[in-house]
Amino acid sequence: MTGFRINFLPDDRSAVVGAGESLLDAAIAAGVPLAGVCGGRAICERCWVVVTEGEVVAPADARAAGGREVLACMARAVGDVTLRVPEASRIEGEEILTGLERPGELPAAEDRVALGLPRAAELFVPSPLAFAVPLELPRPTLNDPVSDLGRMERELQRRRNVQNLAVPLDVLRAAPEVLRGAGWAVTAVIARSAGGYELLDLRPGTDATRAFGLAVDIGTTTVVVHLVDLGSGATLGAAAALNRQVAYGDDVISRIIRAAEPGGLEQLRQAVVGELNVLVGRLAETHAVRGDEIITAVVAGNTTMVHLFLGLPPAEIRREPYVPVATLPPVQHADALGLRIHPRATVTAMPGVASYVGGDVVADVLAAGMDTTTELTMLIDAGTNGETVIGNRDFLICCACSAGPAFEGGGISSGMRAARGAVQRVEVTEDGALACQTIGGTPPRGICGSGLVDLLAAMLRAGWIDRSARLRADAPLVRRGPAGLEIVVVPAAATATGRDITITNADLENLLRSKAAIYAGAALLARRLGVEMTDLERVFVAGGFGTYLDIGNAIQIGLLPDVPVERVTFIGNGSVTGAKMALLSYEALRRAGDVAARMTYRELSVDEAFMEEYVSAMFLPHTDCGRFPRACAALGVA
Amino acid sequence: MTGFRINFLPDDRSAVVGAGESLLDAAIAAGVPLAGVCGGRAICERCWVVVTEGEVVAPADARAAGGREVLACMARAVGDVTLRVPEASRIEGEEILTGLERPGELPAAEDRVALGLPRAAELFVPSPLAFAVPLELPRPTLNDPVSDLGRMERELQRRRNVQNLAVPLDVLRAAPEVLRGAGWAVTAVIARSAGGYELLDLRPGTDATRAFGLAVDIGTTTVVVHLVDLGSGATLGAAAALNRQVAYGDDVISRIIRAAEPGGLEQLRQAVVGELNVLVGRLAETHAVRGDEIITAVVAGNTTMVHLFLGLPPAEIRREPYVPVATLPPVQHADALGLRIHPRATVTAMPGVASYVGGDVVADVLAAGMDTTTELTMLIDAGTNGETVIGNRDFLICCACSAGPAFEGGGISSGMRAARGAVQRVEVTEDGALACQTIGGTPPRGICGSGLVDLLAAMLRAGWIDRSARLRADAPLVRRGPAGLEIVVVPAAATATGRDITITNADLENLLRSKAAIYAGAALLARRLGVEMTDLERVFVAGGFGTYLDIGNAIQIGLLPDVPVERVTFIGNGSVTGAKMALLSYEALRRAGDVAARMTYRELSVDEAFMEEYVSAMFLPHTDCGRFPRACAALGVA
Repeated sequence: MTGFRINFLPDDRSAVVGAGESLLDAAIAAGVPLAGVCGGRAICERCWVVVTEGEVVAPADARAAGGREVLACMARAVGDVTLRVPEASRIEGEEILTGLERPGELPAAEDRVALGLPRAAELFVPSPLAFAVPLELPRPTLNDPVSDLGRMERELQRRRNVQNLAVPLDVLRAAPEVLRGAGWAVTAVIARSAGGYELLDLRPGTDATRAFGLAVDIGTTTVVVHLVDLGSGATLGAAAALNRQVAYGDDVISRIIRAAEPGGLEQLRQAVVGELNVLVGRLAETHAVRGDEIITAVVAGNTTMVHLFLGLPPAEIRREPYVPVATLPPVQHADALGLRIHPRATVTAMPGVASYVGGDVVADVLAAGMDTTTELTMLIDAGTNGETVIGNRDFLICCACSAGPAFEGGGISSGMRAARGAVQRVEVTEDGALACQTIGGTPPRGICGSGLVDLLAAMLRAGWIDRSARLRADAPLVRRGPAGLEIVVVPAAATATGRDITITNADLENLLRSKAAIYAGAALLARRLGVEMTDLERVFVAGGFGTYLDIGNAIQIGLLPDVPVERVTFIGNGSVTGAKMALLSYEALRRAGDVAARMTYRELSVDEAFMEEYVSAMFLPHTDCGRFPRACAALGVA
Repeated sequence: MTGFRINFLPDDRSAVVGAGESLLDAAIAAGVPLAGVCGGRAICERCWVVVTEGEVVAPADARAAGGREVLACMARAVGDVTLRVPEASRIEGEEILTGLERPGELPAAEDRVALGLPRAAELFVPSPLAFAVPLELPRPTLNDPVSDLGRMERELQRRRNVQNLAVPLDVLRAAPEVLRGAGWAVTAVIARSAGGYELLDLRPGTDATRAFGLAVDIGTTTVVVHLVDLGSGATLGAAAALNRQVAYGDDVISRIIRAAEPGGLEQLRQAVVGELNVLVGRLAETHAVRGDEIITAVVAGNTTMVHLFLGLPPAEIRREPYVPVATLPPVQHADALGLRIHPRATVTAMPGVASYVGGDVVADVLAAGMDTTTELTMLIDAGTNGETVIGNRDFLICCACSAGPAFEGGGISSGMRAARGAVQRVEVTEDGALACQTIGGTPPRGICGSGLVDLLAAMLRAGWIDRSARLRADAPLVRRGPAGLEIVVVPAAATATGRDITITNADLENLLRSKAAIYAGAALLARRLGVEMTDLERVFVAGGFGTYLDIGNAIQIGLLPDVPVERVTFIGNGSVTGAKMALLSYEALRRAGDVAARMTYRELSVDEAFMEEYVSAMFLPHTDCGRFPRACAALGVA
């Protein structure tokens, strides 16, 4: 294929594309994070690039600055091209949370078993999904002429109770030479499988310390990889990036649509696998680990993400009755997936429950230890798709609601993801101003979920918005903008972008809908169980959103149930933590399978009471102050 | 690659070979059975071919008839060539035994479970290694939105208790379309694996009758394939051919040497796989079975043959302490082996015991039901490598001896394999002549093992040879030949070749050594167990040799122990029968594994008493008439 080389500045990364491919395709291929939420359909108009060398063609409405600026999704090169990506077109992805940000706040057990919570750690039995066993084999004699394979099996059975050992042909074919070349001192690299074990590799020498694994969280927006030493259980490092699929659409529905186009599924699959390979390569280099020393991986993600990662057609996920291809996909080998680790490394997906409650939520439950506690607990993972679980060791019930992307900054005029420069803390000062704090302490670029929660709560308490989340015209900083009332959170002079950071009434309406959807889902589960939300003995908050969230404010606006704040626990990225538990413990993986099997999924769309709950929750903190006694008292209402 | 087309007459089969390849290579590639036992080293001088068109080059000592006849192993083409293969250069392989020759003599259970013996049949539980399950799945609903895979697993577990189901990615990726395209009426093609099950394929429609398997016997000399209906257990047909590896040497040792040469192992592997593919293709066509409807295969063979089939380096098999790579090789998939059946068909090798007691002997034991009987039984598989097993359900002990190829016609001047035109029955008539009967009733071409046993016994009883198997100079038909005394078994005028069929004193010496080796191995096992050979309650004779053997004569010469003839049972090709039992019964395969694990292997070369037994057996029937009371009585000695 002849193609054109597209070079992106300032990264100086390039890719070769065919004549029919867009500059956005080139950016994806080059791993350059271009903004865009519409899936390359020229709707969101976020992927502007500046042509500094070479010629491109684009429709008139995708061109600006005399044709030197084009929308990457609509433009094609007609020769080698160099492009500059302006700051505004970059995905705000430099500082994605890896789950290792605040080690000081993690329990001491973290280094050993990488758990988020002591209660889960107590029940944790280390037995990694793959391991290396040093074998000093007795040399064969006439009295002991057992075969090469039998000799290894005998020792493996004796030492590690390994039975039903599957052995790939090439490993077996090479075994006589490896064994004799190494003087019968070798290391067997073994993975557990559903029915037994598998010999992944046979290495000369008895150094069994080189056995590493990956815990992977594939989010709709971001991917996080932890590199783990399977012997010690220690996490060597973590890396995160935007899921390159974002270029094809922001949410799972747009991905599912894209996957149904010719070649679309494979394109999406390669996008996420490509990004994972970049992260793994970077981690491996940093920690001096060879790719083939990474012998197993556990991947957690929502059901759609797992489908796309495995190349399973996701079309039925969004069609009633919402049937995935698999919620418990069989273990695969890395080479079949294109993951550049040991080719025979086993890749296990965390078991999921249903189309909209995936292995990421099961991982959350595992990380929180909900399946082992006697307390009545709730878990909220408030992403674009909000998932809620209520239960304990005796029962687990869950639901999913389409909360919208508001708390991730989507659909909010100045919204952004939790990244450097995002306003994450807001309060109303005594003199009636707004005081803001950003992630990384840099000048503000926008406002992220935790900042929005703070803003809502602060304005509610200050009386700047009413309980329907509408701005009062007479409140400070409020002005009339092109779309009605808006409040200036940070004036242009103080921002990194030179534009005001504002929140409009429409934004507030979006936020109210999101919080109502999340709360209503949770409340409906409680109602079906006959328990009061205020009776919850423990509330777990999972996901990046929770990391910087002020609990009091989240309760104040009615996002979280009105329980004493000390009952609320952040578990951070429970998805990657749960994946790591499974990676390090076959028993934990079994528990995950058990959780997935016994968790009851409640389809909200067919429960007539959901709309009732939703409408009641479209108020701050809630229509029924009996459910929010403390929050209402703080407002002086009842 | 440019190459020359070599056409072989009268078969009219051809192959294209490179300039460096010999005409023997061409014959192998074309599947033309050229004689030859030296592995292409111009030693045996059996592979003469006549050049009818085109030019070949060959060394002077490999040319005859003015250069129009050449030794195929030493000659190369210099252009397209047509060759005629004379009768004398053809491997006598047109009528290799498939094990289905005498259906009238097989027990009635044959059609159902393809067993050689009723006693084994009684214990036989049908549970094929692979099977097809028709599934009428309930359509998903909002109340039953279980995933596609989960829906199938639920039904498979309910119907067949299938658990731990491994699913290859491509089957899973195709599943949604297959399920919906077929209106949820599909057929799951499933194989058992060590730890559970594997979904090999998913077919639209619920026709589960199309599930076939192969029972394969890979002998050093011949390969036999049975095509089996896995549902009914019926054997649809059988096919046999010479193992193409014969061209590289007659015995396992020469194959092992060849395998150590560069590319040799792969050459040998492809030779046998290629022949199997020809046989399978022929069977499939005859019985209107598609290749991908053959979903599993069980292969029995001696340890070297299994190594060569799997591509495992066999070098250590012949080096003390005789250690194979594997005696219980893990199950593989057909595509990895190049077997042209369903690419994911499982291929199971019958478990073996040691370097010289392979899965073929374990299959014999299984077919004979030795592992389940309370009687004291012995099994003799008298091939080039003779194997003997003594035991019952409580113990099993075995040994192997290098008997030499005499009873397969090797090393005997007029010897040949049991094929059309082989003298298989010989008796001394009342008027002092030799009466012969050939296989197929055609004019004699040589004399095979059973004919040699008859000849020895008849001449012994008639006093034409002494008890050391030496011809008496004054016996009828005896003359002095170029190598000493010889007897004319069939004069040239009555043979197909126009040459006398003779047996020399050197031939008789070879036969005596072979029978002594076989008997001595058996006797040594009995001695180590403290039992008398005459106490054996049952003697099983396995292998093609036994098919036409006269038991009384075999006892007369001391090849078989002196038990009443009704205690001797032929099991025919026990190797293919045992393989078929395993094919049709996971339980039988487990039993085979159990037999292999508990069978004690006795290495004769390190037992000082073996030579003593051997020397005592170098007499007809034996030095010690106490061990052969009836046989000695028939000779009037004691």
